[in-house]
Amino acid sequence: MRFDSNLTVERPTFVTHLECAYTGERYEADTVHNLSPAGKPLLVRYDLNGVKQALTKSSLSERPQDLWRYRELLPVRKVEDIVSLGEAVTPLVPLPRLGRKLGAAELLVKDEGRLPTGSFKARGLVMAVSMAKSFGIKHMAMPTNGNAGAALAAYATRAGIRTTIFCPADTPEVNVSEIELQGATVYRVNGLIDDCGKIVGEGKAKVGWFDVSTLKEPYRIEGKKTMGLELAEQLGWEVPDVIFYPTGGGTGLIGMWKAFDELEAIGFIGSRRPRMVAVQAAGCAPMVRAWEQGEEHAPRWEDAHTIASGIRVPQAVGDFLILRAVRASGGFAIAVPDDAIQAALNEVAREEGFLLCPEGAATYAAYRQALTDGRVGKEERAVLFNCATGLKYPLPPIHRTLDRTQPIDYSLFEESGR
Amino acid sequence: MRFDSNLTVERPTFVTHLECAYTGERYEADTVHNLSPAGKPLLVRYDLNGVKQALTKSSLSERPQDLWRYRELLPVRKVEDIVSLGEAVTPLVPLPRLGRKLGAAELLVKDEGRLPTGSFKARGLVMAVSMAKSFGIKHMAMPTNGNAGAALAAYATRAGIRTTIFCPADTPEVNVSEIELQGATVYRVNGLIDDCGKIVGEGKAKVGWFDVSTLKEPYRIEGKKTMGLELAEQLGWEVPDVIFYPTGGGTGLIGMWKAFDELEAIGFIGSRRPRMVAVQAAGCAPMVRAWEQGEEHAPRWEDAHTIASGIRVPQAVGDFLILRAVRASGGFAIAVPDDAIQAALNEVAREEGFLLCPEGAATYAAYRQALTDGRVGKEERAVLFNCATGLKYPLPPIHRTLDRTQPIDYSLFEESGR
Repeated sequence: MRFDSNLTVERPTFVTHLECAYTGERYEADTVHNLSPAGKPLLVRYDLNGVKQALTKSSLSERPQDLWRYRELLPVRKVEDIVSLGEAVTPLVPLPRLGRKLGAAELLVKDEGRLPTGSFKARGLVMAVSMAKSFGIKHMAMPTNGNAGAALAAYATRAGIRTTIFCPADTPEVNVSEIELQGATVYRVNGLIDDCGKIVGEGKAKVGWFDVSTLKEPYRIEGKKTMGLELAEQLGWEVPDVIFYPTGGGTGLIGMWKAFDELEAIGFIGSRRPRMVAVQAAGCAPMVRAWEQGEEHAPRWEDAHTIASGIRVPQAVGDFLILRAVRASGGFAIAVPDDAIQAALNEVAREEGFLLCPEGAATYAAYRQALTDGRVGKEERAVLFNCATGLKYPLPPIHRTLDRTQPIDYSLFEESGR
Repeated sequence: MRFDSNLTVERPTFVTHLECAYTGERYEADTVHNLSPAGKPLLVRYDLNGVKQALTKSSLSERPQDLWRYRELLPVRKVEDIVSLGEAVTPLVPLPRLGRKLGAAELLVKDEGRLPTGSFKARGLVMAVSMAKSFGIKHMAMPTNGNAGAALAAYATRAGIRTTIFCPADTPEVNVSEIELQGATVYRVNGLIDDCGKIVGEGKAKVGWFDVSTLKEPYRIEGKKTMGLELAEQLGWEVPDVIFYPTGGGTGLIGMWKAFDELEAIGFIGSRRPRMVAVQAAGCAPMVRAWEQGEEHAPRWEDAHTIASGIRVPQAVGDFLILRAVRASGGFAIAVPDDAIQAALNEVAREEGFLLCPEGAATYAAYRQALTDGRVGKEERAVLFNCATGLKYPLPPIHRTLDRTQPIDYSLFEESGR
């Protein structure tokens, strides 16, 4: 079996229609869509009985380890439309030392930094761009805090599609540079991601580009769904007890929730579900506020600020889907302050040798907090999502030097201290 | 099958002894070694008949996709010594657009940036640290151009081993920061990597740390060997026609060459071998000079300089092993100037959406050059090694801005030009 057989062998597809996530109205598959007429996200629906006939656990186990192994549960119909940069299944990395310290039964990190362009945004964008290619779309535009823009740029360039990208002025330098290097045109905007989103939305009519904002097209969620498919398969077709997910637009949380339903429908897992925990930064926590107040929707969070720029999303178009999944799962929404995020990042790096991104560090900070306040038990198998490589964020500079032309005092190195 | 079965299930091991790569003298396994008494690298030898009995292609295909799937061909004997951060099999990513442009039959990149700490150094260091753990070593030291130090720091921290690391003064900031964040003590030294190596070597007697310099301990090469094992398995147990490998210390090239011999001995591949091409920067090309002059050894390259800092290695202790493999395979050594490296990096990013590291970009530049001068044919299936994520290197800054408080001229975005 060659490495690329998921990308080169035609397999049956089972998309039947799209459905407004709010009203349930049905729309035709295989035509271009953004939001539903009700202004809500569209969900892709499949003939799951058909999938059940076509796909077995053992046939799946023989396929190469990338997200395209789940083709029967994905929307792309033809291999010629697949745009790939090697979307390998991401590893589950235990935190044994910190787990022991906290008394946790099993503490795992799903390390999404291993995907193309260094973040889990690759999952959503590889699907959105592949579908755009199938529709013949020529120009895509997006508001982004950085990682999504990098993924869009990379895949769209590979597909021969033009991209224009808008990001908040203080987006990390490395993100802006990689977006441009990978073939897009990128603008820094003096505002937040939803301000950038307005520009993309207005340009839809004026320029004619396709709007790839979070949940405003139907396929990013199908890509993000693969996090749930992979997780269940990696655990031997079991789900964990609790999932801590860094929540900005929330596509992954919504996607995993959808994945578990589809896996149950095809008989791969039972009815048990993980508790879904939406982790936000204290400086931008609209979902936490709405969850605590029992609201269905989450109004815009004013004056949003956090070092975890990926979850600095003041308002999410899929707010009601996030809140539904969190509530239906018996989970919760939790906010952690920036100093706890930074401390968590340092602790996991220095104790486990694992450099998380700030958003991933937020999930560890939230897990610790939830253990302390009893919302999570030590016996629960917990999975934290590290959504990007920590290398894409500013790191503290180190200035320790040694002059090789002078005699070296080796006793310096004998101390155990630093 | 759970994701971690390679790390938790005991499997038979087959190491018989170690062997001086230059004199062939035998040394005992399961004791601490650095270089052989002849001052040369030690190679790990296995009972390959035993491996052949124990391991089949089909049993292998059922294991999780990480480098520990090849446990029968690795030196670590007990699962309790395995130190892991999720060493997933790295994807092979085609370059279809550039391949077509060049008329190449098949052009693939093995993307080593997906490994822990973002580089292929993880392969060698995960093995060196696991063996160090098995030996009870308490303190490890290393000279590094950056990526190896980051991998050592991460794994040693995870194993509870102290690390002291020395790098050239102009090592990229991100590397130095991640080394320290991941629990090591790091010094910038006013010299090159072999100057740093001298400090580590002298400290061996004075401080008592263990020297993890390239090829000065026997196990990094066993870890790097997995690149060859993975590559053959990904291609359906075939080897490519030609491999372009960015060559500093050359551990990976030597390791892959060893891997192919072992795979033939256990009956997984035949006697055909890929041509091994050692790629160096024109500003630091000791192997190219030695290869051209027909020498067995490569003297130190004075005044070494290149933007590809990972291959800025003026002198390699395994020089004769690199040159032997290149010659035995019918390959060659080739140098590319820094401007060709930068142009290659930009071209692959803008055409394929794939951000290479400078050393990986050097392999693409070398491939192009070799196609032009006829040393490689268009019909040859070529594999280039991208040894680290491009995100770890300085990227060009982008300053394009847009003021959201002013009326936006959308006609700006309609042009196809950039």
